[in-house]
Amino acid sequence: MHRLLLLIIPLLGFATISVSSAAQNQKEKTMPDNSPNKKFALVIHGGAGVVSRESIPEADAKLMQQDLNRALDAGYAVLSRGGPALEAVTAAIIVLEDSPWFNAGKGSVFNAEGGHELDASVMEGHTRRAGAVAGVTTVKNPILLARSVMEKSPHVMLAGEGAEKFADTQKDIERVDPKYFDTEKRWQQLQDAKAKEMAELTHTVQGTYFGTVGAVALDQQGHIAAGTSTGGMTNKKWSRVGDSPIIGAGTFATDKCGVSGTGWGEFYIRAVVAHDICARVEYRGDSLALAAEDVINKIVPEMGGDGGAIALDKDGNIAMPFNTGGMSRGWINPDGTRGTAIFRD
Amino acid sequence: MHRLLLLIIPLLGFATISVSSAAQNQKEKTMPDNSPNKKFALVIHGGAGVVSRESIPEADAKLMQQDLNRALDAGYAVLSRGGPALEAVTAAIIVLEDSPWFNAGKGSVFNAEGGHELDASVMEGHTRRAGAVAGVTTVKNPILLARSVMEKSPHVMLAGEGAEKFADTQKDIERVDPKYFDTEKRWQQLQDAKAKEMAELTHTVQGTYFGTVGAVALDQQGHIAAGTSTGGMTNKKWSRVGDSPIIGAGTFATDKCGVSGTGWGEFYIRAVVAHDICARVEYRGDSLALAAEDVINKIVPEMGGDGGAIALDKDGNIAMPFNTGGMSRGWINPDGTRGTAIFRD
Repeated sequence: MHRLLLLIIPLLGFATISVSSAAQNQKEKTMPDNSPNKKFALVIHGGAGVVSRESIPEADAKLMQQDLNRALDAGYAVLSRGGPALEAVTAAIIVLEDSPWFNAGKGSVFNAEGGHELDASVMEGHTRRAGAVAGVTTVKNPILLARSVMEKSPHVMLAGEGAEKFADTQKDIERVDPKYFDTEKRWQQLQDAKAKEMAELTHTVQGTYFGTVGAVALDQQGHIAAGTSTGGMTNKKWSRVGDSPIIGAGTFATDKCGVSGTGWGEFYIRAVVAHDICARVEYRGDSLALAAEDVINKIVPEMGGDGGAIALDKDGNIAMPFNTGGMSRGWINPDGTRGTAIFRD
Repeated sequence: MHRLLLLIIPLLGFATISVSSAAQNQKEKTMPDNSPNKKFALVIHGGAGVVSRESIPEADAKLMQQDLNRALDAGYAVLSRGGPALEAVTAAIIVLEDSPWFNAGKGSVFNAEGGHELDASVMEGHTRRAGAVAGVTTVKNPILLARSVMEKSPHVMLAGEGAEKFADTQKDIERVDPKYFDTEKRWQQLQDAKAKEMAELTHTVQGTYFGTVGAVALDQQGHIAAGTSTGGMTNKKWSRVGDSPIIGAGTFATDKCGVSGTGWGEFYIRAVVAHDICARVEYRGDSLALAAEDVINKIVPEMGGDGGAIALDKDGNIAMPFNTGGMSRGWINPDGTRGTAIFRD
């Protein structure tokens, strides 16, 4: 029933605009932004990071790409039946959150206290609506809670216990025992980080963020949405907030451009990465590829940070730059061609 | 001793650049960005909001402007002796946080539970360093904790209890009993908001944010810094995070442009207000006045939000647009002329 409504609403919107445009006799001029363009595309990431081909066994890489493909399928199913970009982004990210291979939902890294604090955000371009949560501990799919903040609260961002209390008011948000997020691999990474911290007397922050997930979609109505979800940094302290739940830094979308970032969050916040990529496209007329390339491969490294991003524009152009050893990623172009990759292939 | 070092370092930097420029015989072309330009300026705000001239007794308005002037004096003292913009911004904001007339530090609004959760952020343009805290409860001057996050932690943003724990590690951060922030006026505002909420069966979010404080400074070395501090929205729930602690939304600075915002935070986050103003200046060559005007008086209202912002560019141009009834503000231009105002005078 809900799905049906979602399908009908854009059609109604289209009908209304079509009539009023016809009345003004400016059909060609006023139509493009709202007409179904039938062109749709999807790009996802499972995180950029300091990884080498040798550090990931081939069997693991295969399983990772299998889950990237399942996420692409989930998002593509929505887009191909004419569903909204927001729905496609959510569907793709849920698959990646539920997969233990990525640092989001199940498989999230451990913080310094041996727990998990999850961050997520989502934004819908044409309405500029957005929702975000930081530091949630019992929500199975933080991307869904971020979407609920957007759709069912007067706020954009909720943090920590407050976000949990808001989740208590949302019947459709699945809750889990925090142990659900545990995986042996992440526990070992925490022990390694703590040992390194003891040895170097310094708090480890770099290179442990491989695994953040995100998606950007363009739907048949020409609308763009973007979302990001993460467990943050291994051994993080003091309820550190990274870029993933920050609109403008880790996630941003307009009706022309959408971005999801994955990298050393502190630099992504300072560089306002996601908004900066879209601002270069909008204000300077840079191509999406150039804008994404400049921000990820010039601005961020010049500041001392690293990472990657996925970006998509209204024509379905896709950019996936990264300045790290790898970035797990998947894409379906407007012509239907698709792929997944982890390294610079 | 520290202050002395801060003064010497830029001079050394200047000396080095001066020599190498002379060697290249391009003194005029390569000097401007790094040479002491002796031009300095300061702009501050005490919040934009839905207020009318009638709603603020003249005696109160006078006391408010007295404190705005004290904040201008504190920041100007730093700038006139050649001190850094970051120091001037901090000095000005501390005065406003300590004043009960503004919704930041002492005088912060109450949240739905009758407590206070304070947010602040600061950014230094030429280094692009930034620090932010959200939801702190016992820190007398949140702007100082935001600065400590920037200068003494590997992170940019800390939230809630984690931020308090980080504060525990910082000896120079003054702590207070949460009751310190209480004022009778704000308590009454909470009761009014709760009564309205009961009556309308809706959570009040609009129009209660008058009083957020901020500052942007240009120092004699040509560097820009910006900062913002707030108690957030009266009757806020679920550890709602507004725009003030979000780099890009409430606060942003580069070496060309600095902004501090004050408005309906949800819209400021979605519009990435502070970064958007600077992006229009940088990428499209808009004047600071045009960029600030477009974002505050077109983009934000079109989305359904309201508020204001202060902005400053590298030439010392100041913009102070707002689309609300008033915005308490103060400024000192590069030529030394100064003023304070609350309404559209």
